[in-house]
Amino acid sequence: MVEPGDLAALKAFDGLGVLEIWELLQQKAPGVERWSTRLAEADPERDLERAAAAGARFVIPGDEEWPEQVEILAEAGQLSRRAGVPFGLWVRGPAHLRRVLSRSVALVGARACSSYGEHVAAELSAGLTENGVTVVSGGAYGIDAAAHRGALAVPGPTVAVLACGVDVSYPKRNSALFSRIVEDGLVVSELPPGCSPTRLRFLARNRLIAAGTLGTVVIEAAVRSGALNSAGWAEQCGRAVLAVPGPVTSRMSEGNHLLVRERDATLVTSVAEIIEAISPLGTRLTSYPQAPKTITDDLDHDLRRTLDAVPLIHPAPVARIATTAGLDLSTTQTCLETLADLDLIQPTDTGWRLPPTTPPPNPSPPPHAGTQ
Amino acid sequence: MVEPGDLAALKAFDGLGVLEIWELLQQKAPGVERWSTRLAEADPERDLERAAAAGARFVIPGDEEWPEQVEILAEAGQLSRRAGVPFGLWVRGPAHLRRVLSRSVALVGARACSSYGEHVAAELSAGLTENGVTVVSGGAYGIDAAAHRGALAVPGPTVAVLACGVDVSYPKRNSALFSRIVEDGLVVSELPPGCSPTRLRFLARNRLIAAGTLGTVVIEAAVRSGALNSAGWAEQCGRAVLAVPGPVTSRMSEGNHLLVRERDATLVTSVAEIIEAISPLGTRLTSYPQAPKTITDDLDHDLRRTLDAVPLIHPAPVARIATTAGLDLSTTQTCLETLADLDLIQPTDTGWRLPPTTPPPNPSPPPHAGTQ
Repeated sequence: MVEPGDLAALKAFDGLGVLEIWELLQQKAPGVERWSTRLAEADPERDLERAAAAGARFVIPGDEEWPEQVEILAEAGQLSRRAGVPFGLWVRGPAHLRRVLSRSVALVGARACSSYGEHVAAELSAGLTENGVTVVSGGAYGIDAAAHRGALAVPGPTVAVLACGVDVSYPKRNSALFSRIVEDGLVVSELPPGCSPTRLRFLARNRLIAAGTLGTVVIEAAVRSGALNSAGWAEQCGRAVLAVPGPVTSRMSEGNHLLVRERDATLVTSVAEIIEAISPLGTRLTSYPQAPKTITDDLDHDLRRTLDAVPLIHPAPVARIATTAGLDLSTTQTCLETLADLDLIQPTDTGWRLPPTTPPPNPSPPPHAGTQ
Repeated sequence: MVEPGDLAALKAFDGLGVLEIWELLQQKAPGVERWSTRLAEADPERDLERAAAAGARFVIPGDEEWPEQVEILAEAGQLSRRAGVPFGLWVRGPAHLRRVLSRSVALVGARACSSYGEHVAAELSAGLTENGVTVVSGGAYGIDAAAHRGALAVPGPTVAVLACGVDVSYPKRNSALFSRIVEDGLVVSELPPGCSPTRLRFLARNRLIAAGTLGTVVIEAAVRSGALNSAGWAEQCGRAVLAVPGPVTSRMSEGNHLLVRERDATLVTSVAEIIEAISPLGTRLTSYPQAPKTITDDLDHDLRRTLDAVPLIHPAPVARIATTAGLDLSTTQTCLETLADLDLIQPTDTGWRLPPTTPPPNPSPPPHAGTQ
């Protein structure tokens, strides 16, 4: 009877039960006529039969399986075209809606994505699923499909939230994907079975994905993309807004970089960083990426300073190296011999130098050396 | 006599003129013996002759060409291994040091960079130079060389700050590059002619690049990279710290993403964004990247709502579309006919639908629609 996220309807029927609303509509009560238009075709029994035939159930607020977090939509998005808490959710698949969503993230992005985006979506999705985080997406081509496929490649459920009935395969060529999703996971929709998608229904669907998850990760988005609409919803619902960076030469990452620059999205590059972002503050902290240690890392302070003072090209005598290193002559002499034993430096007739084979000598301090 | 950025020496000689220091060292005065070691080989005349032979000059504080901004180093970096204000700078090339540095940025990054990094460095460098921003780098392989080459491809100077004498080509294979740089630009060093590089001298050199410019742009840096040391110096000097994002699949961008995530570096993707970051707050604001307008952008509100309500697959009758759009029947009818004239929708026996050729119907709001 009512389109998803129709705020006027939610207001008109606020606090009323389904049967009372049904009454009102049949009475064409003043103020609600608008929504009576579909009475003629409305057939709840048929909807439930279609659902049953598709192995789907209807979950409503108060049910054990109801994901309460979507009720944030009662406050969020009042300025948007499609907002509000859904009356209920049609759910198809063996998983338990509330439980799988309790630790979940949305992976969203462009349909016309790049192979880079597809690769990243699948990798992150598989990694998140392996770590017990449910990946939720929209079942569209491109990033959505790659995210679902990545999740399906490992044990664990994935959830597709559609803008049409749970028994409708849109887009058609993803019908095989949907069948695989409902083997372990869920296909979810606010719309009754048989409904087909409209633009407004996609906008309404985006709000559900954002509200139902702990955070929304934008994998690839051009500057005009539904993924940015989803990010906006996550922002309004107080969920984490995360963006994966990409090449600045790619239009498909422009929206991601825009989110980081202009909308305080958190830049994320790995499964660990996503999990940190959706976990309670201060828990699950990710450690800095570390480069493999080199032999010079284990040199003591004097050895390191001496090595640093040895020239690359023209050999220097001990005295010169001592001055450069700021060490006395005998210490420097001992250090030079140790370094030579380690083949880190080379004696010559005119003094010491680095072996020609040494990699070019830019300093390689750990990330924070510059400020230490 | 003294290594670049030797804080102990700067302290010992604080407030003294060159001649007084020279006296002290020859007297081997207590507390300064350390720095007398090189007296024997010291030969200022020879240094000046070598400089003259290489077409270089020695610029000291107070000279008209002296870039005062490097004096920030008197406060910055007290915790670092190589800090302090240089005694003077050896300068080779026709450009005016203070003037070319007055509106300049450092482009830094890995020597072993990717072709992506090389491409981005050259593109940004050319664009910045064309916009009157001098690109400063270190003359090394990889990002440094790509940045200098990008600048050389357009009119305008570029500046290479070396960790060896301005008459020494390190690395050797960049000697042709250095010759081209000194045609319009500058090669600069804190070290007298003939000096060869050491690790400590690279660390000291990085502080000069950071202090001499308005901001440091990290193009590509692994998690252990001299570029992060440069970024640390820029941070300490209160300069803009900027990082270009890259594929999360590339180790060479890990350092960049680390800077954005952990060290509040500003993510930049274009020349305009770099210029915004180095310009006085609120000036030179970059506009959002905009996608080309589509015909539907120009539809009035009712037409847009009607179009949004037209199904993709199963045609819907006017009444249904009116309900979905929330418009009265006659308005809807008129809108449907207009949309059909624009070939945006299709009449069928059972109602209206989008033409099969229509791109998949995810919403395409402008970047902020989600929060409007």
